[in-house]
Amino acid sequence: MLYLVGLGLSHESDITVRGLETVKKCSRVYLEAYTSILMAANKETLESYYGREVILADRELVETGSDEILHNAADEDVAFLVVGDPFGATTHTDLVLRARELNIPVEIIHNASVMNAVGACGLQLYQFGQTISLVFFTDSWKPDSFYNKIMENRKIGLHTLILLDIKVKEQSIENMARGRLIYEPPRYMDIATACSQLLEIEERRQEQAYTENTPCVAVSRLGSPSQKFKAGTLRELSEYDSGEPLHTLVMLGRQVHDLELEYLYQFVDDKEKFKKFVEEDQKHFAPPVYVPPEENLSD
Amino acid sequence: MLYLVGLGLSHESDITVRGLETVKKCSRVYLEAYTSILMAANKETLESYYGREVILADRELVETGSDEILHNAADEDVAFLVVGDPFGATTHTDLVLRARELNIPVEIIHNASVMNAVGACGLQLYQFGQTISLVFFTDSWKPDSFYNKIMENRKIGLHTLILLDIKVKEQSIENMARGRLIYEPPRYMDIATACSQLLEIEERRQEQAYTENTPCVAVSRLGSPSQKFKAGTLRELSEYDSGEPLHTLVMLGRQVHDLELEYLYQFVDDKEKFKKFVEEDQKHFAPPVYVPPEENLSD
Repeated sequence: MLYLVGLGLSHESDITVRGLETVKKCSRVYLEAYTSILMAANKETLESYYGREVILADRELVETGSDEILHNAADEDVAFLVVGDPFGATTHTDLVLRARELNIPVEIIHNASVMNAVGACGLQLYQFGQTISLVFFTDSWKPDSFYNKIMENRKIGLHTLILLDIKVKEQSIENMARGRLIYEPPRYMDIATACSQLLEIEERRQEQAYTENTPCVAVSRLGSPSQKFKAGTLRELSEYDSGEPLHTLVMLGRQVHDLELEYLYQFVDDKEKFKKFVEEDQKHFAPPVYVPPEENLSD
Repeated sequence: MLYLVGLGLSHESDITVRGLETVKKCSRVYLEAYTSILMAANKETLESYYGREVILADRELVETGSDEILHNAADEDVAFLVVGDPFGATTHTDLVLRARELNIPVEIIHNASVMNAVGACGLQLYQFGQTISLVFFTDSWKPDSFYNKIMENRKIGLHTLILLDIKVKEQSIENMARGRLIYEPPRYMDIATACSQLLEIEERRQEQAYTENTPCVAVSRLGSPSQKFKAGTLRELSEYDSGEPLHTLVMLGRQVHDLELEYLYQFVDDKEKFKKFVEEDQKHFAPPVYVPPEENLSD
């Protein structure tokens, strides 16, 4: 059997009881180690917690070496551990499909992921639109396909969850060219970088999907003991020191409710000022964008 | 301290290890018992699992009796258990705000909820738009405010998660009028009812937010041992026997990827036929709806 087990967000004890019982009985345990990290645990603490060796699975092993992971899994139990939920921000459907092709039964043990735990900032999950990802810009590579998605979400008043880039086990271009297996230190995008990149793209596109006064929520170390939320405008948060990783950003949509706002006030420096920015932003895409097509107006 | 603890979706052992350790040390343990149920556990199994009495908290207690829940919580540990995640489909921000007013520290222990575990159907979470809820229609009450939201999601190509009504501890109008505290048996909306109601509203509105051929995924008993997915058109699923509760429905958006489709094929009766309906539906809102406003075209 192949078990895909979600680990939750922070502590080794964020695994579910059923997940832990499962991992303990598996003969091989892989940890997906390239799209996220467990904030308050590492390979060693997990190994001692599970009483099992933990094999770090990098992108290459998961994407091209899945038959190694699945080896003999029809006869023995293999666990594939994923920070958050196995079907969260990064889904592992390809591994499941490959297992099914090999007639290996699969069981999923779910857990919290940033995709649902972000509700802890007080914004209602059902008011979120599509999720976007922001990668580290380089001098020559500043992809902005996320911009249209934010525009689409905000036109209909929805909040946008913005996942921030993580670079683990990356090679420099020089080392890659020379075939040297030397890896750069891991990098985790912080809130200030994310907001600056967003502002840079708005400056280039000038379509006002958002402005420097658009209200956002900085979500830092979600689910960990040092979890912190900070609400402010994009400009304010572009100068915010968000501390240790991981971080996530939420951009508000016009449909924000009073109850959501009431909750956010806990995380602002100046309530009246933040409220003013929210009210201003609510006018940005108002009146509501959806108008029924003319041919239906006669009904 | 007030702990809000997510229980996950199905088994008593779907609680996290940290959640279980927390519940075991609390002097009072409440279970929010009106917006969802744990599919493979009840009050008694939870009580024996935790070694603690579990107090069922109905809507009235949570919404108007929160000070009873919070009584003395500055000095002792109180757990408030929520099926899924405390900030999932139903958020408990009001309880948290009330606790903060009373200077009671609050800690959240997250877990999987339908809002992220639905990714197990193979559709990518980041492609979902706003979530809608569908209530049981009566002869005289058929609210259709969800319809515009589906329209908005589908115009920009996004999937829609449709949460289905649950009625627990409801009184009949007669019993309510006579002040008799007699409650109706619990009702959980099934897939066929949900699809029929959706079709009924489309027939009334005739704006083609969706059609009877729009592809959907029926999600039954998510996260439980008898979990089942079924993909088909709205019309097909309006005659589908989805079995025991709980159920959730997903309506596909035009942006569906090949990898998502590949996964869904596991759940269809006839792959070619389903593929044809998907391709037909992809044309429904094409070309992409978003066009930059004219004043910006000159950039």
